[in-house]
Amino acid sequence: MAKAPILASRTEDFPQWYQDVVAKAEMAENGAARGTMVIRPYGYGLWERMQAEMDARIKAADAENVYLPLFIPESYLRREAEHVEGFSPELAVVTVAGGKTLEEPLVVRPTSETLFGELMAKWIQSFRDLPLLLNQWANVVRWELRPRIFLRTTEFLWQEGHTAHATQDDAAAYARRILLDVYRDFMTNLLAMPVLVGMKTARERFAGAINTMTCEAMMGDGRALQMGTSHELGQNFAKAFEMQYLDASNTLQHCWTTSWGTTTRMIGGLIMCHGDDHGLRVPPRIANVQAVVMVVRDDDSGTVEAEARRVAAELTAAGVRVKVDAQTSTGFGRRVTDWEIKGVPVRIELGPRDVGEGVVTLARRDDRTKETVPATGLGERVPTLLETIHETLLAEATATRESRTTDVSTIDEAIEAAKTGFARIPWEAVGDDGEDRLAGEGITVRCLQREDGTVPDDPGEAGLRAFVARAY
Amino acid sequence: MAKAPILASRTEDFPQWYQDVVAKAEMAENGAARGTMVIRPYGYGLWERMQAEMDARIKAADAENVYLPLFIPESYLRREAEHVEGFSPELAVVTVAGGKTLEEPLVVRPTSETLFGELMAKWIQSFRDLPLLLNQWANVVRWELRPRIFLRTTEFLWQEGHTAHATQDDAAAYARRILLDVYRDFMTNLLAMPVLVGMKTARERFAGAINTMTCEAMMGDGRALQMGTSHELGQNFAKAFEMQYLDASNTLQHCWTTSWGTTTRMIGGLIMCHGDDHGLRVPPRIANVQAVVMVVRDDDSGTVEAEARRVAAELTAAGVRVKVDAQTSTGFGRRVTDWEIKGVPVRIELGPRDVGEGVVTLARRDDRTKETVPATGLGERVPTLLETIHETLLAEATATRESRTTDVSTIDEAIEAAKTGFARIPWEAVGDDGEDRLAGEGITVRCLQREDGTVPDDPGEAGLRAFVARAY
Repeated sequence: MAKAPILASRTEDFPQWYQDVVAKAEMAENGAARGTMVIRPYGYGLWERMQAEMDARIKAADAENVYLPLFIPESYLRREAEHVEGFSPELAVVTVAGGKTLEEPLVVRPTSETLFGELMAKWIQSFRDLPLLLNQWANVVRWELRPRIFLRTTEFLWQEGHTAHATQDDAAAYARRILLDVYRDFMTNLLAMPVLVGMKTARERFAGAINTMTCEAMMGDGRALQMGTSHELGQNFAKAFEMQYLDASNTLQHCWTTSWGTTTRMIGGLIMCHGDDHGLRVPPRIANVQAVVMVVRDDDSGTVEAEARRVAAELTAAGVRVKVDAQTSTGFGRRVTDWEIKGVPVRIELGPRDVGEGVVTLARRDDRTKETVPATGLGERVPTLLETIHETLLAEATATRESRTTDVSTIDEAIEAAKTGFARIPWEAVGDDGEDRLAGEGITVRCLQREDGTVPDDPGEAGLRAFVARAY
Repeated sequence: MAKAPILASRTEDFPQWYQDVVAKAEMAENGAARGTMVIRPYGYGLWERMQAEMDARIKAADAENVYLPLFIPESYLRREAEHVEGFSPELAVVTVAGGKTLEEPLVVRPTSETLFGELMAKWIQSFRDLPLLLNQWANVVRWELRPRIFLRTTEFLWQEGHTAHATQDDAAAYARRILLDVYRDFMTNLLAMPVLVGMKTARERFAGAINTMTCEAMMGDGRALQMGTSHELGQNFAKAFEMQYLDASNTLQHCWTTSWGTTTRMIGGLIMCHGDDHGLRVPPRIANVQAVVMVVRDDDSGTVEAEARRVAAELTAAGVRVKVDAQTSTGFGRRVTDWEIKGVPVRIELGPRDVGEGVVTLARRDDRTKETVPATGLGERVPTLLETIHETLLAEATATRESRTTDVSTIDEAIEAAKTGFARIPWEAVGDDGEDRLAGEGITVRCLQREDGTVPDDPGEAGLRAFVARAY
């Protein structure tokens, strides 16, 4: 009798497959309060690595971390009118504290933008204080009516960067540096996700921004996921908060600012980009467990477990993040299935006969191939294999995206193509009217790009192409 | 004319001195919502290092990190009655979200204890799932009527560990491992703070615990600060949440649990333990900036700055966390004062004549001594000096604590001694009545210790001594 499948079919019911993977891989589960999530050790380990790698890149871009309060007096949010209108229905508000009703309610931060505005205006006096490059890692809350774990949750974890510069050019260059050297580099080289970089259209731009740039990835169902954005805010934000500096000739000037952010939704993107019918496939460089050494079965003297631990020690010494699975009281097949669902890049399997012959089975999660190799030299073989798997996952995701991206020249064709993937269309063939028509079909322009794949400086540049898709 | 002092006198007005240091060292400032704090880059850099070092020790103790939701349905907190009574007046409550009044209010976590209870009960099935060793880094909120930055704030950052074990012995051993190998090791070897470890009396014990163990430090004004606690919760917590496991003979058993935590208040402890009249003194191993290379003044061709950058590069290569200060538009004396307030352990000062002679001035922050040394070989000299400064700060704090600890044999003497420091008194000379009398004077038993400085297994052991003090 065929066993009941552990996961829903990825091709037939992608949303259910996603939920199944999140649950069965022990990544996360729903919290008690509606729309919140519990991130379990396996999922949080992934986030910790993401955070560490992203943070190192943010620091390399000279930004410093701060921590601002969770609570924002309600009156603060009213200062930036445009801002409040966007957020108001999403806010969670504390009205009772210390056993009393508060005179002024406190909003649980949906972003710390207003606090950054206040503080940066205070901290900046002269051109010597510029650029001021700040970042924050924190939890934020936005009330969600249709929550989905990692993708849209009432509370999520993120980083938000806010910087102030003396000139528009400096601000523009910094916003691009974050987009490319921090976000794209991290997503490509750690997450093995080939993101498209580009500029948002005026319609899709962040409220208050003069330019929003984005990293867009294709998910396994052909939809787009916005993985991170970097905004030039011109002097709008500085004017709202009176963020001014004395220039070298002692004249008061408004700053030019940027903001940029990425969130735990990247975990959802990782799952939906690389997952297959057998579960998650975690790219090796970001994997918290890169290799698992499995005892198939053992003899009475524990020879196999001893050898498994020797192999694990050799791998650890070679810099591989490794776990030993000697839970032989659970069936081997069941354990393999579990490690596959969790997407651990490499399995090293060994039983009594293998130990006798001095070999192990080396199994790749990405293409599910296996080979028998000598038990010696794994400290050299496995790191190389992990790099190969990274490259394979990146190449596969790139090929999938290309194969599901259709070049079209009309809105009708774009609507048709967006049913299964991305449409690539000359921006001049879309325009505001075209965007309206697409919106009516639940489709958006994800980004504008130059022919050579670079980010334009201006949406009016000639020859731009638009990537059009349904999106999460 | 004498300049106005930058900081209040540490001996005359310790609380004001503390506030001045926090502000002038740019560690933190008050947030807009009452009792909250903004942690500025210099303060947050310290917290990041604390978090990284503590986290490495927690992981070495095999605990894994998770992230649980910020919001807790109000009904959850009622499950553990003892728990709620302690927290109720401290709670911040969200009653409005998504533009509507919520049917069930959501409490902003004062701790995630109840959520850990619920989840661990669900995740634990059999003895194979034990021990379950979890930790969380997060923000928590407890409404404070008398907030003080880092020491008592409405919102603070912390880690809380929660573990479940099959036997009382396992739980007891783990709680001690955290106290000694994680907390004491971190505080002594990173923060250079010679904490006393001991057991809390029944009166001072955490609600629901069968044993609370603590790390207690002496501040610069002779008061005690509780730096971290580790609790054995017996089966109380497991029973409240029906946290049970099937043992090897298939019988259902309640788990034995522990919990343990440390917070951003450690930053306050660090300031108050090591600070002097000139500001903060940051112990080198935890310092985010270990050395600053200062250009005293430069010539027109920037020779001195070039040499400063060469020295900085040599130090960086030697593993020293270093900054260059070439802000010669600000007076040298003013800059020295600022770096002293910030407590950077080592300053390397150089001007045109030094460069000509191939020397630099090496200034220690701890004892404020200076010497002229060759500009070559700093990559070896500075790391050694940093270790010396760590040892010096630790020895100094230990000597201060010893000199301000008085051996007494009566409650009257203890009350007198606690005016300026710690009293050490035989526990049998205190007892419940003694604790009542001390409490009337605002004094508490900080911990019980054996003669040899180790943590007792039982408060009834013969020959225990009590450390008695005023505390933050």
